[in-house]
Amino acid sequence: MTTCRDYASHNPVDVRRMIREGKWDRPTSGMCSGYAQGNLVVLPKDLAYDFLVFAQRNPKPCPILDVTEPGDTEPKIVAPGANLATDLPRYRVWKNGTCIDEPTDVTKYWSDDLVGFLLGCSFSFEGALLQANIPVRHIELDCNVSMYITNRACIPAGRISGQLVVSMRPIPAELIPKAVLCTGRFPAVHGAPVHIGEPEALGIKDISKPDFGDSVPIHKGEIPVFWACGVTPQAAIMATKPEFAITHAPGHMFIADTRDIDYAVF
Amino acid sequence: MTTCRDYASHNPVDVRRMIREGKWDRPTSGMCSGYAQGNLVVLPKDLAYDFLVFAQRNPKPCPILDVTEPGDTEPKIVAPGANLATDLPRYRVWKNGTCIDEPTDVTKYWSDDLVGFLLGCSFSFEGALLQANIPVRHIELDCNVSMYITNRACIPAGRISGQLVVSMRPIPAELIPKAVLCTGRFPAVHGAPVHIGEPEALGIKDISKPDFGDSVPIHKGEIPVFWACGVTPQAAIMATKPEFAITHAPGHMFIADTRDIDYAVF
Repeated sequence: MTTCRDYASHNPVDVRRMIREGKWDRPTSGMCSGYAQGNLVVLPKDLAYDFLVFAQRNPKPCPILDVTEPGDTEPKIVAPGANLATDLPRYRVWKNGTCIDEPTDVTKYWSDDLVGFLLGCSFSFEGALLQANIPVRHIELDCNVSMYITNRACIPAGRISGQLVVSMRPIPAELIPKAVLCTGRFPAVHGAPVHIGEPEALGIKDISKPDFGDSVPIHKGEIPVFWACGVTPQAAIMATKPEFAITHAPGHMFIADTRDIDYAVF
Repeated sequence: MTTCRDYASHNPVDVRRMIREGKWDRPTSGMCSGYAQGNLVVLPKDLAYDFLVFAQRNPKPCPILDVTEPGDTEPKIVAPGANLATDLPRYRVWKNGTCIDEPTDVTKYWSDDLVGFLLGCSFSFEGALLQANIPVRHIELDCNVSMYITNRACIPAGRISGQLVVSMRPIPAELIPKAVLCTGRFPAVHGAPVHIGEPEALGIKDISKPDFGDSVPIHKGEIPVFWACGVTPQAAIMATKPEFAITHAPGHMFIADTRDIDYAVF
């Protein structure tokens, strides 16, 4: 079976075409190395303003990379010519806060009323961690990152509210300063961690039982480091139950034509 | 006559009260040292979504710090209890792209339909320049910064479009790297410069004739350095002529309770 790694050096246009043609329905971590990947949130125009304000008030979990015109599926800023309704390997379709479908194409759901948002993804800063020789456990184990719904409320906006979701990476204590600095360069893709150690203070009772993703072991000498996570809008959708929404399925991201380095501030 | 410098160590709550009571109607540069100041843009709710998308697509000139609820004048995130209709020393009121009034209070104009936006201001990074011993000419001369409408179009959004406006500071050649690094720390308040030298390439025909602000001399050994400017939305208002808008008068900013350092990424 081919793996993501086999597509590390492919370009985004080719990989999106392969996905659109139904030839890839698995996670995208590691594909098109160096290119930015994005979280997808699609909402009715009526809610799009509230979501933009929610993102402005909570930029660490919700860094917006692109916004489509109502009814249009093309992310003109980050990938002209691409189609957000077909170019992700798997979607989640939400009605009143419940996931009702996990298709590989959402063309039939995309009405004239919908607005698509692409949000920055931690895959962008994981490249920076690896380049700095900082180990990333879930990549080593070829599993999904651990994600937790915290006790920290996002700042609400209009009808949208919810708790902050964080992703966790165990980092050797002596490498944590470097991990903070090299992810802090990327404020548009979650940036520096929001919390280092002390999971209880975030309301995480059992670090071995994440709310999303896989459980990832923490070795002796390592501290759990928490970053704001792009799954936060999905938690907000579960909490605020909009009539209709579409998101990506966790790990099954949109691959943009922009590069990780385009989102570095220095 | 008292000057801004006399209020450098005052706190924002006291200075906003003085402004609200009509005791200060002059520029705010240098007041409440260390506290963030903001550009104001007020638009009808109908245009607020387009403006949020415009800001998302043009984050360097339009970094949004706060968005009010429709009809509300309180910037709850950056200054709870403050009033955007009274707490700036001078405003501009726009009808169909033309400035029709420059009052010191806009309470009578603030209808239930209006949304207020506060945008980051270069005063925040000028503090960082001064701390790094980089001279800031217009502060030395106690005049306004030079601003130019460039030949670079912002990425339009809905009904909002316009050219990028830049501010210019002459910087000694050997200090330019430090100026780039220390302003790059503040992406939420315009961040690193957008252009160094070569004003002709930005469409600036005569550097001694700015479109806004005062002419600032460039000495031998100095290069004009250009930063994205928060007057860009005013240029967009002049270009797209919305039925109604309110902005601050250039230099007459809102003083927030948040601090410049709150907007640093490292």
